[in-house]
Amino acid sequence: MATKNAKPLILITNDDGIQSPGIRTLIETMRESGKIIVVAPDTVQSGQSHSLTLEEPLKITYHSKKRDLEEYAINGTPVDCVKFAFHLMNRKKPDLLVSGINHGSNASSNVIYSGTVAAAVEGTLLGFPSVGFSLDDYSWNADMTPLKPWISKIVKHLLQHPLPKGICLNINFPKKQTEAIKGIRICRQAKGDWHEEFVEQTDPRGRKYYWITGVYNCLDDRPDTDVRAMEENYISITPVSTDWTAENMLNSFKDLTNV
Amino acid sequence: MATKNAKPLILITNDDGIQSPGIRTLIETMRESGKIIVVAPDTVQSGQSHSLTLEEPLKITYHSKKRDLEEYAINGTPVDCVKFAFHLMNRKKPDLLVSGINHGSNASSNVIYSGTVAAAVEGTLLGFPSVGFSLDDYSWNADMTPLKPWISKIVKHLLQHPLPKGICLNINFPKKQTEAIKGIRICRQAKGDWHEEFVEQTDPRGRKYYWITGVYNCLDDRPDTDVRAMEENYISITPVSTDWTAENMLNSFKDLTNV
Repeated sequence: MATKNAKPLILITNDDGIQSPGIRTLIETMRESGKIIVVAPDTVQSGQSHSLTLEEPLKITYHSKKRDLEEYAINGTPVDCVKFAFHLMNRKKPDLLVSGINHGSNASSNVIYSGTVAAAVEGTLLGFPSVGFSLDDYSWNADMTPLKPWISKIVKHLLQHPLPKGICLNINFPKKQTEAIKGIRICRQAKGDWHEEFVEQTDPRGRKYYWITGVYNCLDDRPDTDVRAMEENYISITPVSTDWTAENMLNSFKDLTNV
Repeated sequence: MATKNAKPLILITNDDGIQSPGIRTLIETMRESGKIIVVAPDTVQSGQSHSLTLEEPLKITYHSKKRDLEEYAINGTPVDCVKFAFHLMNRKKPDLLVSGINHGSNASSNVIYSGTVAAAVEGTLLGFPSVGFSLDDYSWNADMTPLKPWISKIVKHLLQHPLPKGICLNINFPKKQTEAIKGIRICRQAKGDWHEEFVEQTDPRGRKYYWITGVYNCLDDRPDTDVRAMEENYISITPVSTDWTAENMLNSFKDLTNV
């Protein structure tokens, strides 16, 4: 919990890059809540999941400093940004890490590919409360204004009620904005998959190359999933564990110990 | 389960690249078990986790074909390799995906950064039984010969007893090889973290850049963890879920629905 009378320290990152409308909206919204440090990728890092830059060095490619708002862009992934931010802060833990707002849903199995949520997972591993925000709309120009009061309320609550260890929150906003968002539901990750195709093209030297494309399919009829909540115009909040052990399967593989 | 009398189809990938000793050992070991297709990265992809190549196209940079062994290298990540392999196989599911042998442990929270395990997670999402093998030794020249009979036995078992849906196995071999491996244990993911430092250097034009370095700390005394098993010279097998919902936390965030 933030020290009484001291402004909370809030770390902001994302995976769409420091110039994306999503992170700009998040920064604007967060300025009322505390002292802000932004460390974000200098380019789009969609689909980077929890990847780390090990084979080349990181550089700070942009830096600005205003009252209670310091920003850095680096040539790295969202997870690099969180680790590097912790270094820049001399290992002082922020009161909250907020990642996003992602341009596109991170509900269902998208959580596994998401750099936005990976940043929150990394914050959790480093020991600070962390959440990722995403909007179920890939458009760069999506209107994020209706999300601001919800984000403010959620963040205010989280600063008063810190998350338990080992858990971050994957928070997804519905796309439908012809009517007001109905509220918030606590959800489980829906089962779903991507059906991918590879579009084959040929370069001027006659060599083939392949672009991945895909269509997401939700394969889950349960009433309490993140996908269902968004379909019904609710904000979904899914608690995400950093312990991936299939707990209920630990007793199912006894035979394997006797091969 | 493999069709009777037909050779099982086994898909092999890794994150250290198609030329690494780890995958060469795995290919040698697997040849007795079925028809092999290898689709692996053409360069080292350590720490790439579940990242996908979206911003540039994939190319096949190496291809060879022998009896019951076909190999492809591509300019992608381990997860790209699994998706592209599925495309190359005309969406025919292999009987088993084996990823590795990784040069380095993927126990504890390393599973989150691991491209080796990510490939197995991706196979699971696509609906085929998948496992990742790793050796707790980063050396490129580590002696992997003692692992071969264990891998053969585990694979033989898995071809007879397919994994349940939504679960893959993260299999880690201990480093200590002065005595024989004692056996196999079914384990949970140990709690642990990385303490990172960033080494600052300056380029000839006076610009600073930073290399990440880190030391892993195990923070878990429980007797049934993957780290403990390896310390005691056992092979650890951890069932990994593709559902990251913190199941036991679903009722802990009621307050958040009333902000």
